[in-house]
Amino acid sequence: MNRKAAQVHAAPVGEDAVRTMMAELAAAARAAAGALARTSTEAKNDALRAAAGAIRQRREHILAANAQDVEEASGLTDALLDRLRLDDDRVEGIAASLEQVAALPDPVGSESARWFNEANGLDIARVRVPLGVIGIIYESRPNVTADAGALCLKSGNAVILRGGSESFHSSSALVEALGVGLRNGGIDPTAVQMVPTTDRAAAGLLITESQWIDVVVPRGGPSLIERVQRESRVPVLAHLEGLCHTYVDRAADPVMAADIVHNGKMRRTSVCGATETVLCHRDASGATLAQVVGRLLDSGCEVRGDTEVQQLDSRIVPAVASDWDTEYLDAIVSVRVVDDLEAAIEHIHRHGSDHTDAIVTSDQGAAERFLEEVDSAIVLHNASTQFADGGEFGMGAEIGISTGRLHARGPVGLEQLTTFKYVVRGQGGVRP
Amino acid sequence: MNRKAAQVHAAPVGEDAVRTMMAELAAAARAAAGALARTSTEAKNDALRAAAGAIRQRREHILAANAQDVEEASGLTDALLDRLRLDDDRVEGIAASLEQVAALPDPVGSESARWFNEANGLDIARVRVPLGVIGIIYESRPNVTADAGALCLKSGNAVILRGGSESFHSSSALVEALGVGLRNGGIDPTAVQMVPTTDRAAAGLLITESQWIDVVVPRGGPSLIERVQRESRVPVLAHLEGLCHTYVDRAADPVMAADIVHNGKMRRTSVCGATETVLCHRDASGATLAQVVGRLLDSGCEVRGDTEVQQLDSRIVPAVASDWDTEYLDAIVSVRVVDDLEAAIEHIHRHGSDHTDAIVTSDQGAAERFLEEVDSAIVLHNASTQFADGGEFGMGAEIGISTGRLHARGPVGLEQLTTFKYVVRGQGGVRP
Repeated sequence: MNRKAAQVHAAPVGEDAVRTMMAELAAAARAAAGALARTSTEAKNDALRAAAGAIRQRREHILAANAQDVEEASGLTDALLDRLRLDDDRVEGIAASLEQVAALPDPVGSESARWFNEANGLDIARVRVPLGVIGIIYESRPNVTADAGALCLKSGNAVILRGGSESFHSSSALVEALGVGLRNGGIDPTAVQMVPTTDRAAAGLLITESQWIDVVVPRGGPSLIERVQRESRVPVLAHLEGLCHTYVDRAADPVMAADIVHNGKMRRTSVCGATETVLCHRDASGATLAQVVGRLLDSGCEVRGDTEVQQLDSRIVPAVASDWDTEYLDAIVSVRVVDDLEAAIEHIHRHGSDHTDAIVTSDQGAAERFLEEVDSAIVLHNASTQFADGGEFGMGAEIGISTGRLHARGPVGLEQLTTFKYVVRGQGGVRP
Repeated sequence: MNRKAAQVHAAPVGEDAVRTMMAELAAAARAAAGALARTSTEAKNDALRAAAGAIRQRREHILAANAQDVEEASGLTDALLDRLRLDDDRVEGIAASLEQVAALPDPVGSESARWFNEANGLDIARVRVPLGVIGIIYESRPNVTADAGALCLKSGNAVILRGGSESFHSSSALVEALGVGLRNGGIDPTAVQMVPTTDRAAAGLLITESQWIDVVVPRGGPSLIERVQRESRVPVLAHLEGLCHTYVDRAADPVMAADIVHNGKMRRTSVCGATETVLCHRDASGATLAQVVGRLLDSGCEVRGDTEVQQLDSRIVPAVASDWDTEYLDAIVSVRVVDDLEAAIEHIHRHGSDHTDAIVTSDQGAAERFLEEVDSAIVLHNASTQFADGGEFGMGAEIGISTGRLHARGPVGLEQLTTFKYVVRGQGGVRP
């Protein structure tokens, strides 16, 4: 497999050949989706657990493929190299995450609503069904291969994975292991397929041939997601940037504010739910803000402040206009004093990304106004923006946080990977 | 207004001017959407009732504008001319439908789910919020102007309407009346705007400038909807064709089958929920099918049958291959004998449009298998396909029947014109 993968990797085939290959892949996915939609929860869970076993068994093989990716990688930053690299613990983590998905409730077949219409005698149920075939386009992290594959499978969808070229060998080895597991668990392995070439034309076809897939989920940096949104002829579930704000209201408890801002920024700086900008009510811009900012500075966070904020500590550097529009994904934060709650909401509307925004206050009225007027996927009161996570919401694993407004908004878990149909039971009646 | 509209209509402005005009329209819609999202149910209902009053008051003016459209119309079929033409009753119907929308429950602000996560102390609510700005692109029926405007307004969305050129004067007069009503009811009339030119470039910009509108709803024939789906850079809620089937199972009651098929086809032949193809189990292809087909023929329906069906009645004409893929929207039906339930499901998968399909049977097992395996937006047991309607589902007025799989599937009513956000209330906790 490694040799075959390397071959394809090294010598992308011509455009017609890519189209033929992709059409076959898509047809196989469509057929697998039809069968998978009617597969029992038990069979899907068995297959996921068998896949976890296959990944553990093939650990050495997977690590060798990953070593090849790392060796071939050039021009990757240390952070990207770290995302790419697998070790024993990470392979075990991938296997364990398949078992976690197996343990989640199956959304398929559940009734999200059911009612009886007296007027016409119809019993109407809204029943969850799979979306069909899902395309996932992602960048370097090999673990996405297994996580996304497992979530799609559990929600009854066939999936076509198109990973980054830098993780090609790792992803191929993982998909191969998944396939062995699925087959052992009694499910057609074409339910989880990977595009077997890094040719860019393949990804282009995947998102423009609208009959092949029902939805595409891009996972990666802004340029990838913008390209998919621009070119796609199929619906996109995108998670764009998270330019998240924490607003410290005048009625904020100083200790709580310092805790929530520190956690929102510093718990993990690379996640989309990390706080990037702190807004502070003018009335709290003295002792309270000094405490909030001091805590960040003491943790090694770079603080970029407006003129007023700069007075608080000599370590604070000046913020420039572009800071209010920057998702740092790093130990950097911008801090601004605003006149009031309204000005904070206005700043968030202007500069935010509709992802996640929080208010810290003991004023219930201010909190409710913030929660109502800030139109982001997730709005929080007295809680860290880093709670923006499907697991923390009790939804289990997630494929990302959608910043789109349609279908799925916020964490995209198993339920969000389904649609529904209306099942109507009559008694022979006709419509007048 | 008539003169101004006629002028714009007659002399479309240049491309740059169209872009400037559309950008201004879109900016006004965005501002209106922000205000409308926070407008009370009472205020929206008052405005809708005031708009109904304004339409009644301006009846003569609206009829004069409509007469101008009818006079200018050329090349329209009688059916399209009939859709275009307004009279006293139809204007009253438009006004009454605004009042009906006012009487429907407001989805905005309602909690579709709320739970407490013990593990992290978060109280999480999923709250309905408007989508934002909705674009509606439609063809000749002037009533869509008022119906779509009212549904968008009630669901808290600003709307940009782009009607067909053949109904330009009628729609302009209706939007003008709506605006007078909205203003009298205390709502900014830019909440419901119409593109004031028939220049095709305006529609093109509306669906390609992705920051202007949040979703586009095309209403009209297949060519309009396909064009919007092909060119749009914003999400589309499309209702494509309804190639609906009624399957008469071997265990069907003959009288019920004849009733349901007759109603499914003949109640109204021009609606998307009309039955276009009847499939019949071989075991029911004698007396039962003769009764079903005889009832259709006696009502003046043209029946196109396969070789077996043709034996039943000399009035039956032969079906050709393309008949199984044709949405007649007329008093024509294709009829085919199939070997069994599985063959019926297979035919529907191959030829259907995932809209609405029905089974007539007294065999509960066959019914459940059909309801599970046919993957259409609406599947019915012992009920007419003409029940495919938001009103019949108890959802009130609808903007159409979505054949897409994401966000809205089936009838698109007020709820389907909203999205949601997560409102999270914490107690100062941070994420470990």
